Amino acid sequence: MSQIKVLAFDVFGTVVDWHSSISREVTAFIGHRVDGDEFARAWRAGYQPAMARVMSGELGWTSIDDLHRMILDEILDRFSVDSLSERDKAELNKAWHRLEPWADSVEGLHRLSTRFMICTLSNGNLGLLANMAKRAGLPWDCILSAEVFRQYKPHPDTYLGVCRVFDVSPEQTLLVAAHQSDLVAARQCGLKTAYIERPDEFGPSHRKAVDPNPDNTLHARDLIHLASQLGC
Amino acid sequence: MSQIKVLAFDVFGTVVDWHSSISREVTAFIGHRVDGDEFARAWRAGYQPAMARVMSGELGWTSIDDLHRMILDEILDRFSVDSLSERDKAELNKAWHRLEPWADSVEGLHRLSTRFMICTLSNGNLGLLANMAKRAGLPWDCILSAEVFRQYKPHPDTYLGVCRVFDVSPEQTLLVAAHQSDLVAARQCGLKTAYIERPDEFGPSHRKAVDPNPDNTLHARDLIHLASQLGC
Repeated sequence: MSQIKVLAFDVFGTVVDWHSSISREVTAFIGHRVDGDEFARAWRAGYQPAMARVMSGELGWTSIDDLHRMILDEILDRFSVDSLSERDKAELNKAWHRLEPWADSVEGLHRLSTRFMICTLSNGNLGLLANMAKRAGLPWDCILSAEVFRQYKPHPDTYLGVCRVFDVSPEQTLLVAAHQSDLVAARQCGLKTAYIERPDEFGPSHRKAVDPNPDNTLHARDLIHLASQLGC
Repeated sequence: MSQIKVLAFDVFGTVVDWHSSISREVTAFIGHRVDGDEFARAWRAGYQPAMARVMSGELGWTSIDDLHRMILDEILDRFSVDSLSERDKAELNKAWHRLEPWADSVEGLHRLSTRFMICTLSNGNLGLLANMAKRAGLPWDCILSAEVFRQYKPHPDTYLGVCRVFDVSPEQTLLVAAHQSDLVAARQCGLKTAYIERPDEFGPSHRKAVDPNPDNTLHARDLIHLASQLGC
């Protein structure tokens, strides 16, 4: 553990609570005639298939902002919402720039940054991540994104790209995420991994399992717990 | 002026004092048998020709860390220094990660960040810029580099890349630099420009002219003066 120098964080779900933030904004823009909780889950569920279209080559390189907008247009149709102006849709799409951090995130990151280089490794685009960080007070030392490496996670170029940027080995790099699939891919590249429990990622009515996986280097309830485990 | 949203900063010379930092480290590593001031200027002077070799295609994409090391090897030879171990050379090369900010930089950036998105736009690589910022307390909202755009300044892709990342127009973007050539190239892309006087960039014995150029949007003594002009 003492060799770890860089902590790279998944962001959506791990550091910020996309579900309640998006649900709230959906209700603010559309009103109570749609279920904001369900709309938020549907929007997020479109994310992996949309990225898969880019990874397969069907679409050229596309920012997450643009993918979010494509998905939004689809689900507005599916939820039979036709009341939003173009300006409303563009503004609602930027709700992903305004996601709120989990209650422990800002304190946890501040503590972790005292001993480690802390960066994002998110499929979100740089502008989205920078706007989110500035608004929420997330003290990143560096914002890294799929946009820098022109590959989305879980492509190995993203995990190994972090190591290359900071001139460290995979064993000196810890990926922090609330998603086992992300951690599996990082481990396959030789990185160390920390799982963060976020049982309410999909909302309190859709709690997810947060069982420990012994393959991870660390398992933490939240980022403050992770900081304590890392001596920060 | 009121439309400006993003401030992108040149770093070497504009935000940090490379000359005195490098000069001091050269003396620490090599001793007084070389003139640290002159060695620092020679190292920096190798920078443009080295980037030109990449821009021409003679070299593939090369990080500034690697270019700095190529130049270091040349000038150690030119200054007849053969006392450094490989480890010393690697460590001395990282002196560029440890550049000290000018006295006004940290306060100026903090003030500017209250009203604007502030980012780097440097030819330095991301790891170098992140290490420097963490050590010096430079409160960037986002670190952007030639490394992200795979072109060095003054290539238009770098200036326009900043606009693309933040989804703003060139007129909403202010390039801040102590070098007129950088500002000219930014203006050709439609960005607004702010010149910062750094008469001692090359050391007190090699003061440079810092005359205003009326083509710049703003002209400031330092970053605190810039913050005042921008109402921060």
